[in-house]
Amino acid sequence: MGTLLGLGAVLACHDQQCRASQESPRRYTREEVKSHCSPETGVWVTLGCEVFDITEFVDIHPGGTSKLMLAAGGPLEPFWALYAVHNQPHVREILAQYKIGELSPDDKAPSILKTSDPYMDDPIRHSALKVNTQCPFNAEPPPELLTENYITPNPIFFTRNHLPVPNVDPDTYRLNVVGPPGGQSLCLSLDDLYQFPKHEITVTLQCAGNRRSEMTQFKEVRGLEWSLGAISTARWAGARLCDVLAQAGHQLCETEAHVCFEGLDSDPTGTAYGASIPLARAMDPEAEVLLAYEMNGQPLPRDHGFPVRVVVPGVVGARHVKWLGKVSVEPEESFSHWQRRDYKGFSPSVDWDTVDFDSAPSIQELPIQSAITQPKEGEIIGSGEVTVKGYAWSGGGRAVVRVDASLDGGLTWQVAELEGEEQRARKAWAWRLWHLQAPLPAGIKELNIVCKAVDESYNVQPDTVAPIWNLRGVLNNAWHRVHVHVAP
Amino acid sequence: MGTLLGLGAVLACHDQQCRASQESPRRYTREEVKSHCSPETGVWVTLGCEVFDITEFVDIHPGGTSKLMLAAGGPLEPFWALYAVHNQPHVREILAQYKIGELSPDDKAPSILKTSDPYMDDPIRHSALKVNTQCPFNAEPPPELLTENYITPNPIFFTRNHLPVPNVDPDTYRLNVVGPPGGQSLCLSLDDLYQFPKHEITVTLQCAGNRRSEMTQFKEVRGLEWSLGAISTARWAGARLCDVLAQAGHQLCETEAHVCFEGLDSDPTGTAYGASIPLARAMDPEAEVLLAYEMNGQPLPRDHGFPVRVVVPGVVGARHVKWLGKVSVEPEESFSHWQRRDYKGFSPSVDWDTVDFDSAPSIQELPIQSAITQPKEGEIIGSGEVTVKGYAWSGGGRAVVRVDASLDGGLTWQVAELEGEEQRARKAWAWRLWHLQAPLPAGIKELNIVCKAVDESYNVQPDTVAPIWNLRGVLNNAWHRVHVHVAP
Repeated sequence: MGTLLGLGAVLACHDQQCRASQESPRRYTREEVKSHCSPETGVWVTLGCEVFDITEFVDIHPGGTSKLMLAAGGPLEPFWALYAVHNQPHVREILAQYKIGELSPDDKAPSILKTSDPYMDDPIRHSALKVNTQCPFNAEPPPELLTENYITPNPIFFTRNHLPVPNVDPDTYRLNVVGPPGGQSLCLSLDDLYQFPKHEITVTLQCAGNRRSEMTQFKEVRGLEWSLGAISTARWAGARLCDVLAQAGHQLCETEAHVCFEGLDSDPTGTAYGASIPLARAMDPEAEVLLAYEMNGQPLPRDHGFPVRVVVPGVVGARHVKWLGKVSVEPEESFSHWQRRDYKGFSPSVDWDTVDFDSAPSIQELPIQSAITQPKEGEIIGSGEVTVKGYAWSGGGRAVVRVDASLDGGLTWQVAELEGEEQRARKAWAWRLWHLQAPLPAGIKELNIVCKAVDESYNVQPDTVAPIWNLRGVLNNAWHRVHVHVAP
Repeated sequence: MGTLLGLGAVLACHDQQCRASQESPRRYTREEVKSHCSPETGVWVTLGCEVFDITEFVDIHPGGTSKLMLAAGGPLEPFWALYAVHNQPHVREILAQYKIGELSPDDKAPSILKTSDPYMDDPIRHSALKVNTQCPFNAEPPPELLTENYITPNPIFFTRNHLPVPNVDPDTYRLNVVGPPGGQSLCLSLDDLYQFPKHEITVTLQCAGNRRSEMTQFKEVRGLEWSLGAISTARWAGARLCDVLAQAGHQLCETEAHVCFEGLDSDPTGTAYGASIPLARAMDPEAEVLLAYEMNGQPLPRDHGFPVRVVVPGVVGARHVKWLGKVSVEPEESFSHWQRRDYKGFSPSVDWDTVDFDSAPSIQELPIQSAITQPKEGEIIGSGEVTVKGYAWSGGGRAVVRVDASLDGGLTWQVAELEGEEQRARKAWAWRLWHLQAPLPAGIKELNIVCKAVDESYNVQPDTVAPIWNLRGVLNNAWHRVHVHVAP
């Protein structure tokens, strides 16, 4: 029976291919395409002059069903312009499987105006950044610059944008802080925000996808191919969120509640980037959550949220909402795609057919992490001695208490030297840089360098990637490994 | 065939009844009973002065063979006290069938301890406990009882004593709470302590040395050979430490400070057991640190600190000081041996020649942990299906968000089902029990069962023991592995 079904699928596929490639393509009008815009009618889309029936793909769209349905019955181009991740061969291949014909020759001219590039107003970036995607802009500093300074210079701070960078006029900027039921909302200008006590802290931000490329080496995932640079450290200054919430009349309540943030960056439908954190963290002065307007003594750069972003020490980057437009306290987490359908961890056994996003908590605090920035993979180093450098950090304010490094793939270990500022217990928001200087046995030809860190709760990093692999490729904190050759 | 077996059983039963009732009872010594503790020797037990040969009943015990075998060669009373289901007439009737005689009249009274022994006044313990050392008493519940209940019954709660158990008179007991400089100290009777608001929480305690025996298998360490049972869960009630400290005039200060605890247990030189926790945790009402006087609705048993012990949710057992005599706030950690020269983690490269105890922080919060309690190592399980059971817990109030189990040594994983009470975010003080029921491929001969848990900060357990090995054998939270055979 299984074989029969399989055969049926092959025949059907073959049938489509015939229609698509061997016969002259079937023709459809834009009106016909437009009428296929729901699961009931079937979901059709166009790309160029080609027509696709993607009904069966809708539910397995990595970016979510609802996002894809925005394009139902019309052209994909405006959305792909926004989500440049689609401009890859394998995406074209997936789409090709669903081709059912072409637009009528009379009907090929785009019926909608070609919108100007939504990214045309993005800022100029530093050329040292290693670009993952240009639109939206996602880039990381190269390893050799990453740990050059305890504080990452603004121009090479890793950038994770989900949408075009909004161009906000600081004079007309207003932050909407929704008040409690029956209370008054605040509408804060930048000058209003400056009136709150200015609070300044050093905080490391890390993307959940940092070191994803190592996960991909084990098994394909969906996500940006971050190397080990989706992490950076800055000195942030701004108003404490707890002070602003208190002024709006909010109090810590017994029942579960969440502070929801909305960015001023939005997609063509007007949907803004959004995320949330638990109210308990937001209201805790010791948690030091900021509405930051300064980064390393400068106004926030546009790529990092000018004029105001959230900084949530110890928590995954995705909650540090940039270009902050709105703050509200809700009984539930943000309904944003990025809160509920992304940035969650799953068992290696979960795939895109079985994933239930509601079954996993949204990532907040991140686990213990470390990586080697020097030497680099495949490098040829001098004999006699090796210097290994890297970073280590843990979420939740947990201090790094030790970094172990190995030159023989983890058989023996040496304790690395921690550099930089001492960390405060329970409030260790910033990374520790570290190094190990070790003599090399004469005649050794190669090194398998490994690092692993320990935090103040004595959490450690797992040995290997495979058992923590997950379909989105987040939360890779396995031992970092670098293989190098030793010059004779 | 079934009938024949049934007839045989009836005949055997008749024969026994004759022996038991018609003749004068045969007499046995406790030593003789004790020597019948396996299927090979026969399985004997006692109840009161009666002796029973339950060899044939062992395999049909409704509670399972392994549970019953815990009582083999000794008295049933401690187990029946724990599992009150046995106190029913039909259970007595079943048992009566197996009576073979009575204890010798000379042997009925329990043997008396030597008076010079500093441990002579230690309490009587439950015979189900697996004893690591008798003096001081250190013992853990066997795996098959450990996860039988979400709340561990008091008599089988794991016991970690460092010294003889003090015998404290509750009427004259006083807790000395040292006041701040220039302030007044408190001298609290039990009645005084009862006047503070009573706070009740469920908390899991784990010894830092839990699962040390697995570390020893890799390389020798110094410490008690705990299996996986140095962890238990109880409902604790008492006064909040923050309330008591506040009454003594203590406040949270900007500078680092520690709350030091001293027990009433002491060595021959008069040195008491001691430990400390950071003042910030002690003063935080959300951290719920207790001066507990109740354990599962009862006054604390003597082995667990009667009349008062500290309970520090989310923190290693060593800080939950028992038989509490003194509380003080100090600028430094406790100078106790157990705070400064024990209960710390080190790199695998550190040995007794190179260890610098001052270089490592004292263990407070523990890392994510899980273990398999069923099936047991080396067991022969039935074919068709396997049920795996275990526990998972993390320190610092971090909830357990997932347990992955593998039947093939970690190549593939299945998500286990979490049982018991939901955990509060950031205040998940108690463990989650879990199980996985999985079909077995026909013809499979053995299983390499593995488990690993994930906490709400997405911390995971390391794959192997060797890279986290340390000279004291603490903090073993590597994947737990159990190898079993499958019956054909």
